[in-house]
Amino acid sequence: MRVAGIMSGTSLDGIDVAIVDIGARIRTVAYGTTPYTPSVRRAILAVSNRACHTADVSRLNFLLPELYAEALGKLCRTNGVDPASVELIGCHGQTIFHESEGGAVAGRRVASTLQIGDGSVLAERTGIAVVSDFRPRDMAAGGKGAPLVPFVDQLLFRHRTRRRVALNIGGIANITVLPAASEPGEVVAFDTGPGNMVMDQLVAQATQGRARFDRNGARAARGAPIAALLEQLLRDPYYAAPPPKTAGREQYGDAFLQRLLATGAPIDDLIASATAFTALTIVRGIRLIGADPAELIAAGGGVHNPRIMGLLAAYLPGVRVTTTDEFGIDPDAKEAIAFAILAHRTWRRKHGNLPSATGARHPVILGKISL
Amino acid sequence: MRVAGIMSGTSLDGIDVAIVDIGARIRTVAYGTTPYTPSVRRAILAVSNRACHTADVSRLNFLLPELYAEALGKLCRTNGVDPASVELIGCHGQTIFHESEGGAVAGRRVASTLQIGDGSVLAERTGIAVVSDFRPRDMAAGGKGAPLVPFVDQLLFRHRTRRRVALNIGGIANITVLPAASEPGEVVAFDTGPGNMVMDQLVAQATQGRARFDRNGARAARGAPIAALLEQLLRDPYYAAPPPKTAGREQYGDAFLQRLLATGAPIDDLIASATAFTALTIVRGIRLIGADPAELIAAGGGVHNPRIMGLLAAYLPGVRVTTTDEFGIDPDAKEAIAFAILAHRTWRRKHGNLPSATGARHPVILGKISL
Repeated sequence: MRVAGIMSGTSLDGIDVAIVDIGARIRTVAYGTTPYTPSVRRAILAVSNRACHTADVSRLNFLLPELYAEALGKLCRTNGVDPASVELIGCHGQTIFHESEGGAVAGRRVASTLQIGDGSVLAERTGIAVVSDFRPRDMAAGGKGAPLVPFVDQLLFRHRTRRRVALNIGGIANITVLPAASEPGEVVAFDTGPGNMVMDQLVAQATQGRARFDRNGARAARGAPIAALLEQLLRDPYYAAPPPKTAGREQYGDAFLQRLLATGAPIDDLIASATAFTALTIVRGIRLIGADPAELIAAGGGVHNPRIMGLLAAYLPGVRVTTTDEFGIDPDAKEAIAFAILAHRTWRRKHGNLPSATGARHPVILGKISL
Repeated sequence: MRVAGIMSGTSLDGIDVAIVDIGARIRTVAYGTTPYTPSVRRAILAVSNRACHTADVSRLNFLLPELYAEALGKLCRTNGVDPASVELIGCHGQTIFHESEGGAVAGRRVASTLQIGDGSVLAERTGIAVVSDFRPRDMAAGGKGAPLVPFVDQLLFRHRTRRRVALNIGGIANITVLPAASEPGEVVAFDTGPGNMVMDQLVAQATQGRARFDRNGARAARGAPIAALLEQLLRDPYYAAPPPKTAGREQYGDAFLQRLLATGAPIDDLIASATAFTALTIVRGIRLIGADPAELIAAGGGVHNPRIMGLLAAYLPGVRVTTTDEFGIDPDAKEAIAFAILAHRTWRRKHGNLPSATGARHPVILGKISL
């Protein structure tokens, strides 16, 4: 079955679209990103967890699927994929509110999550069935509605005899630990710490915003990690705390950046330190639960940084460090592909959440189907 | 198939739940209304087409399905219906925004509609598959997302040799004209004018709010319609305008009430006039398009007013005036039943909109399915 996955994250970069063929294995047919225009980005921010008008939420809920449909159409055209060959779409939508701990309304306390980007509009505009709105069902079953990707990690990467760790190095880094022949209940997933976001901020700072990331880890290679700084950063109790745990973007935002800059060290040394810090905290996370994997399977933008990949291999002797490419999954497209796979599960009336990762009371069929 | 329909209208009265058995005919198994508490009503108003906070929309979107599930559970208990016998739920949700003419967002113009009351939460809480969010697909197909009930009228009441009119007397009155052996494209539906809302407001005024409607048309029977007033009211060009047309609640609100009270006529004469006005405008609507029906099939609260039903019969000689009861549809439950029937259509992968009524470019499968 040919399925498209459409992901737009809270970083508001834009719309990631992946098309995959789902059979005994997964094959990535096409992948691309369409950036949001500044006015769309502003419109999303204007309704994200803040005072706004019902009209703005409603209009944006109908506008986003138009943009998703255009992004999918563009991807098909550029890659010579017949849109009519796509049989199903999994669409994450845009999260504008998420409160798993609950909040007060009409005298009750209610946990809730709100993704916009209407599935019916997307189905009408593309002529393709859509599964949308994946998080509410897990939350209704007592889960946090996140993370959802570990379910897909387990589905794709679990091995009968080898212990594996699936790693995603996005803004934040997170791992899914998959014991050999693991039952779903044995899978543990959590955020290990920063992914690319500290490095990216330092590079942007060093270049006055002209560069957005350390291409090929070149700047880190020119600098040297500062051992004392790393030692100090690693003292944060987060890295020793047992899972479940979540690292927010706010944890590695401006305050963290200022702390690094305050050392007065050369910027390339700071970039080298941030690079090493990402690798070290990933390794800490893996060691934390005594995972000791045979293979580490990485995805996310961080896999393009040879410095990080090299450090991971160096810090994890005996572990084969590879990327999802080996499994037919473009490392940049993994999250979009995950929602294609989750949509396919729903279409087949199969559950798509991992209670050990989300905290749900039981497995549930995620999302809503627009025919 | 046993299907529940759950309707909560913009009047914010509460939650109407109907359970029907759908086969060759429709059988109403149970019907009931659970009023909203004042705090829920306030919370809905606070996010309805006005400045609010994303958090309030999100929390209420998750709270409402809890209330819907409770209302369905209560209905089952009071009527000795096994909840496990209900195989599907059609849930309209609560409209908090509707703008079929379109509005501006991020430099584009977008028509949109927003119903809250998450279907995934309702499915999880009841263990029953849910079809929710019926309006967006029709709007995405170029329709106004409303009215949706005429499709059900056509399904239930169309006759091979008789021309029929389905009438709903709610706050507003509307008709669906069904030519004999009509094709869907020949069905016309529109609002004829006030239903009960003018009468109800006069009765509330006369009783300082102690009575909310003219029980059995008793007050109208004690008064006499004022011919000059009726003549004047009927001069409004709305009643002669060709369909499609929509009468808003604002059209028969406080300003209309004050106009009646300003005549200084005895209140029962005004109530008698308002009653006659409802009947007269319904008749005008039927005559307007030369419908000349063999049968008029009424539903809505107005059917309990013998005065209105009597006037309709008197003004429409040769027309058999009856109610939906004859077709297994409790007249009070018709709207909730309509959404059970529309959900059943979606479940069977059949379209559920009537392009001649909504203006959509083509028939579409309505709603989103939560398994």
